[in-house]
Amino acid sequence: MMVQGMNAKTSLQTRLLRTLRAVRRFSERPIPADVMDDILAVGRWTGSSKNTQPWEVVVVQDRQTLQRLSQLGQFAGHVAGATAALVLVMEGPNTAFDAGRLAQNLMLAAWAHGVGSCIGSLFPEEHEAQAKALLGVPPERWVRTTISLGYPADEQAHRVHSTPGTAGALPSIGRKPRDQFVSWERYGQRVAGRPS
Amino acid sequence: MMVQGMNAKTSLQTRLLRTLRAVRRFSERPIPADVMDDILAVGRWTGSSKNTQPWEVVVVQDRQTLQRLSQLGQFAGHVAGATAALVLVMEGPNTAFDAGRLAQNLMLAAWAHGVGSCIGSLFPEEHEAQAKALLGVPPERWVRTTISLGYPADEQAHRVHSTPGTAGALPSIGRKPRDQFVSWERYGQRVAGRPS
Repeated sequence: MMVQGMNAKTSLQTRLLRTLRAVRRFSERPIPADVMDDILAVGRWTGSSKNTQPWEVVVVQDRQTLQRLSQLGQFAGHVAGATAALVLVMEGPNTAFDAGRLAQNLMLAAWAHGVGSCIGSLFPEEHEAQAKALLGVPPERWVRTTISLGYPADEQAHRVHSTPGTAGALPSIGRKPRDQFVSWERYGQRVAGRPS
Repeated sequence: MMVQGMNAKTSLQTRLLRTLRAVRRFSERPIPADVMDDILAVGRWTGSSKNTQPWEVVVVQDRQTLQRLSQLGQFAGHVAGATAALVLVMEGPNTAFDAGRLAQNLMLAAWAHGVGSCIGSLFPEEHEAQAKALLGVPPERWVRTTISLGYPADEQAHRVHSTPGTAGALPSIGRKPRDQFVSWERYGQRVAGRPS
């Protein structure tokens, strides 16, 4: 693709953003401590509403804790086999937008190191309460999201479910066409009326 | 920083993630159409819960519309001087987490091209309704977030408010210390108990 002002640096950076995909099956290769530190540093520097930083992260690497976490969400099965999980501890329920920014940054940082990731939702409320008890998180915090981390099990790891034989349950991995995503100036105006 | 397995590519990519800062004052340099297309392509490929893609984006470049949008949020003043605004049109209020992921990806894609950005919140509800009317968005959608885009006005553009003389109103641009961000295995355990 020829993009005006596009150079090798830009291209490498946007490639990272464009190629992030959920990985649900992980290899046993450990995540080096300094790679984890780098992922967490990116997380710490994520922007938030009025720079409130309404978040903390609990890093879970204990296998038993990972297995228990995996049972606290309908689609969190991948956590059981992850090398680590980053559990987002948010200040309250009105911080979901900032939680999404943090999750995206953490997953992109992991991917820059070749580490795959997948979001698991801790719900319903009963499961969230159990997750808080498991990790010693104060009850008033909001703990809905855990992010599995690990090097991909194989080249197909981003295309398949964590449980063999259930691939059909995965949603499509494509995206809707651009004409259902972008409008110009007014909603529904699908052709760019651009200033020349 | 020496990071095991860190190479030039990884370093360049995580640098993008770490250096994103809000830019509130923009130059008059236009954003080339293919740069805008690349930013939107990254947005379109953002991951979402069960790949529902509960979003659309309205690109606003008309100066009058930008000025009207800037009046629909307490901290949206920067929109008036932006080269463009990306207005996130979400399916409903339960999509805030995914909206955050989309916003982060769009801003990072812009930054990879040297284009600065800043989030503006459209609120309270009355303002959101006015924004929908302005852009022809169906009332049942959720329109809380607009992202200003533009090349930074100068090297200090990320440090200052859009309105001269009000710099004091800006929150700190630093981040809380790592020990208030990361716990290991259990909430509040600030020292890594890492597997060797």
